[in-house]
Amino acid sequence: MRFSLLSTESAHGPRRGRIETVHGTVETPVFMPVGTQATVKTLDPRDLHADSCEVLLCNTYHLYLRPGHETVKALGGLHRFMGWDRAILTDSGGFQVLSLAKLRRISEEGVAFQSHLDGSRHVLTPEKAVEIQLALGVDILMALDECPPHDADRAYHQSSMERTLRWAARCRAAHPGDQPALFGIVQGGTQPELRARSAEETRRIGFSGYALGGLGIGEGSAAMYATVQETTALLPTDAPRYLMGVGTPQDLLECMARGVDMFDCVLPTRNARNGTLFTGTGRINIKGAAHARDERPLDPDCACYTCRHFSRAYLRHLYAAGEILGLRLNTIHNLHYYLDLMRQARQAIEAGRFAAWQAATLARMRGEPTTSQHAQEIRTDD
Amino acid sequence: MRFSLLSTESAHGPRRGRIETVHGTVETPVFMPVGTQATVKTLDPRDLHADSCEVLLCNTYHLYLRPGHETVKALGGLHRFMGWDRAILTDSGGFQVLSLAKLRRISEEGVAFQSHLDGSRHVLTPEKAVEIQLALGVDILMALDECPPHDADRAYHQSSMERTLRWAARCRAAHPGDQPALFGIVQGGTQPELRARSAEETRRIGFSGYALGGLGIGEGSAAMYATVQETTALLPTDAPRYLMGVGTPQDLLECMARGVDMFDCVLPTRNARNGTLFTGTGRINIKGAAHARDERPLDPDCACYTCRHFSRAYLRHLYAAGEILGLRLNTIHNLHYYLDLMRQARQAIEAGRFAAWQAATLARMRGEPTTSQHAQEIRTDD
Repeated sequence: MRFSLLSTESAHGPRRGRIETVHGTVETPVFMPVGTQATVKTLDPRDLHADSCEVLLCNTYHLYLRPGHETVKALGGLHRFMGWDRAILTDSGGFQVLSLAKLRRISEEGVAFQSHLDGSRHVLTPEKAVEIQLALGVDILMALDECPPHDADRAYHQSSMERTLRWAARCRAAHPGDQPALFGIVQGGTQPELRARSAEETRRIGFSGYALGGLGIGEGSAAMYATVQETTALLPTDAPRYLMGVGTPQDLLECMARGVDMFDCVLPTRNARNGTLFTGTGRINIKGAAHARDERPLDPDCACYTCRHFSRAYLRHLYAAGEILGLRLNTIHNLHYYLDLMRQARQAIEAGRFAAWQAATLARMRGEPTTSQHAQEIRTDD
Repeated sequence: MRFSLLSTESAHGPRRGRIETVHGTVETPVFMPVGTQATVKTLDPRDLHADSCEVLLCNTYHLYLRPGHETVKALGGLHRFMGWDRAILTDSGGFQVLSLAKLRRISEEGVAFQSHLDGSRHVLTPEKAVEIQLALGVDILMALDECPPHDADRAYHQSSMERTLRWAARCRAAHPGDQPALFGIVQGGTQPELRARSAEETRRIGFSGYALGGLGIGEGSAAMYATVQETTALLPTDAPRYLMGVGTPQDLLECMARGVDMFDCVLPTRNARNGTLFTGTGRINIKGAAHARDERPLDPDCACYTCRHFSRAYLRHLYAAGEILGLRLNTIHNLHYYLDLMRQARQAIEAGRFAAWQAATLARMRGEPTTSQHAQEIRTDD
C-alpha cells in the first residue's frame, strides 16, 4: 500500500489523498461501504462498481466464525470469494467480539468469547487477529484494539488504552511488513491526554495508517469533533487517518474538515433497510403514507439507478409489501448519496473551497434555501 | 396484440410463434417470470433485461389490494410504476382470491372475499376483474375463472366450468375489443368431456388467446399431460395457448411438445429463495455442507451472472448467513435456467428437431450420460 497526499488546504484541515493497493487505487477522503459477511447487504459487486466504489470494509469477527478464514483462504481469498476485485479493509474483530459475542473476557492475552452463532469458544489475540486477516487476503488489516464504552471511567480508559498499545506492538510484530498494510488504532476516549499518549505510542510502533477508534459511540458530536481535531493534529501527515464506524453525512463533513481521510459506517445501508433515505435536502422516511401517490424520485438531483427509474410511490409500495427489491433500491440510493458526497468533497478540496462547499451542503441538508451563488457553486461540483 | 404462428412440426406438436404487443415482441414458446406485487422477487428490471425476458406475469389480486389499481393508474399504469417497458400479463385475481383470501364465497355474481391483509370486504366480479386489469394498463388480461380443487367431484367441476363460461362471456362483454388483449380460460378438471365443452364454448365467445386453467394443482403429471394434449387439439391454431401456473422444467418440455405456447410459474423464483437450484444435470440444494468449499459454479455450462462470478461455496455461505444477496443470485440463476431452456426449445422447434432436443435434455436432467452425438446436438443449441 502507498499513500500520497495530493493537496491540503491547511496543516490540519481537509486533505485530498490517494491510496494505492494491489487491488486498485482509492481516492481519499473515502467512505467505505460495510460488507459485514462478505457482501454489502442487498448489493452485488456490479452495484458497487456502478458507484465507483473503490474499497469495502468487511468484518473479521463474522468471517472468522462463518464461513471461517481457512475456508476463505482455501477458496482463494476474500476478493475471489465475494467476487470483488477492488480493495478490502477488514477490522480486527475486536469491536464485534465486544459487542456481539457472549461471555467475553478481556485479558492481557486477548479476548476469550463464545460465538453468538453456536456458543463455541474462541480466543482472539493480537496475533490471531493478524493471522485471520492475512488468511482472508485483504489489502488493509487493522490491529486488535479494545473500544471501551465512552462513559467508562478514566482509569479504565487509561488501562485499556495502554493494553491496546501493547496489543498494537504484538500485531506489528506478528506482521512486520507492509504488504498488506497494517493500521494502528488510537484509543483514549475523549480525554486529550490519553489520546495524545495513544497517538504518540502508536506512531512510535509505526503503521501504514492510523485509525481513530472509540468514537461515534454515544459521546456526542461536539466531543467527537473535538477529539478528532486534537488527535489528527498528532498523527503523521504522510499516512491515512481512518475514523472508524462514523457516521452521519454531517459527521463526515465535520471530520473531513478536521483531516480525516477514511470512514466506514453501517448507517447508509442499515437506514436503507429501515426505509430512511438520505437526500441533499434531508432525510425521507419512505414508509410514510404521504408518498403513496408521489410520482417524484427520492431526490430529483440524484443520478442513482433508483432515482432515475422509480418513484417514491413505488419504493413505498415495495417497503409496505415487504419486497426485497425495496431494500435493494433503497440501499443503492443511500450508498450513492454517501459516495457522491465524498466525490463532491474531494472536488471541493482540490478546488481549495471545502469550507464554502461544506457550509452550503450543510445548509441544504437543514432545508435552508441556498443563495443562487451557493447553488451555482454546488452545481458546478456535480 | 397480434399472434403469428411461425412454424410447427405437426398439427398438435410444438409451435414456434410470436406475440406482438405495444410493449414489444414476445417470442413463443415463452416462460413468464412471476412479478406478484409489481416486482419479480429480489430482481430489478435490469436483471430481467439481461436475460432477454420479454413478458412478466403480475397478480391482480395482490395489486388490487395493495397499492390499489386506482393508485397504479394514477401513477401512469403498471409498466411505469414498476419501471418495466416490456409486456405484462395479469391473471384475473380469481386464483389468489380462492387460495389466499379469507371467508371467500362464490356466487353467480362473482367472489365475495375478505382481504388477507386487513380483513376488508370485497367482491370480485367478471366486470371488476376486467376493470382492475384495464386500470393497471397491462398488455394481456385474463378472464375471471374458478379453479376448483382437482379432486372436486364431477358435478362440481361441471357446474363450476359452466359458471366460468358465463363469467367469460361477461368479461368479453365488459371488454369487447382487442387492445389490450383478453384471454379466455378453459376449465373442466381432467375430464375430457368437460374440457371439450369448455374449450368449445370459450372459443365461441372468442378471445385473443386461450389458457388452460386448473392444471398443475395435484392431479399428477400423467393426467396433466393427457389433458393438455386433448385440450390444445381443440383450440384454434392461430391464437396463443397458455398453461397457467405450470411448472417444472420437465412439465415445460412435455407441454411444449403438446402445443402450449406460454407458461408461468413461481417455481424458479420460489425455489431459488429456498436454495433449490436448477442445472442442466438436475437440481442442487445449495444449503448442503458438501458445497462449503466447492469452488465450482452452480452449473459450469450456465452463462448467468451468478455462475460467471460466484462459487457454490459463496452461495452456500450467503444462504447460511441469511444474506439477501444469496436469494438474489439464486433467483438470477434459476430464471436464467428457465429462460434459456425456452430459448433452446424455440431454436429446436425452428430447426425441426424438438423431439431429439427434448429427449437429450430430459436425459441430462436425469443425470444420464449423453452420447457424444447428443452432446454435440445440445451444444449447437447454445
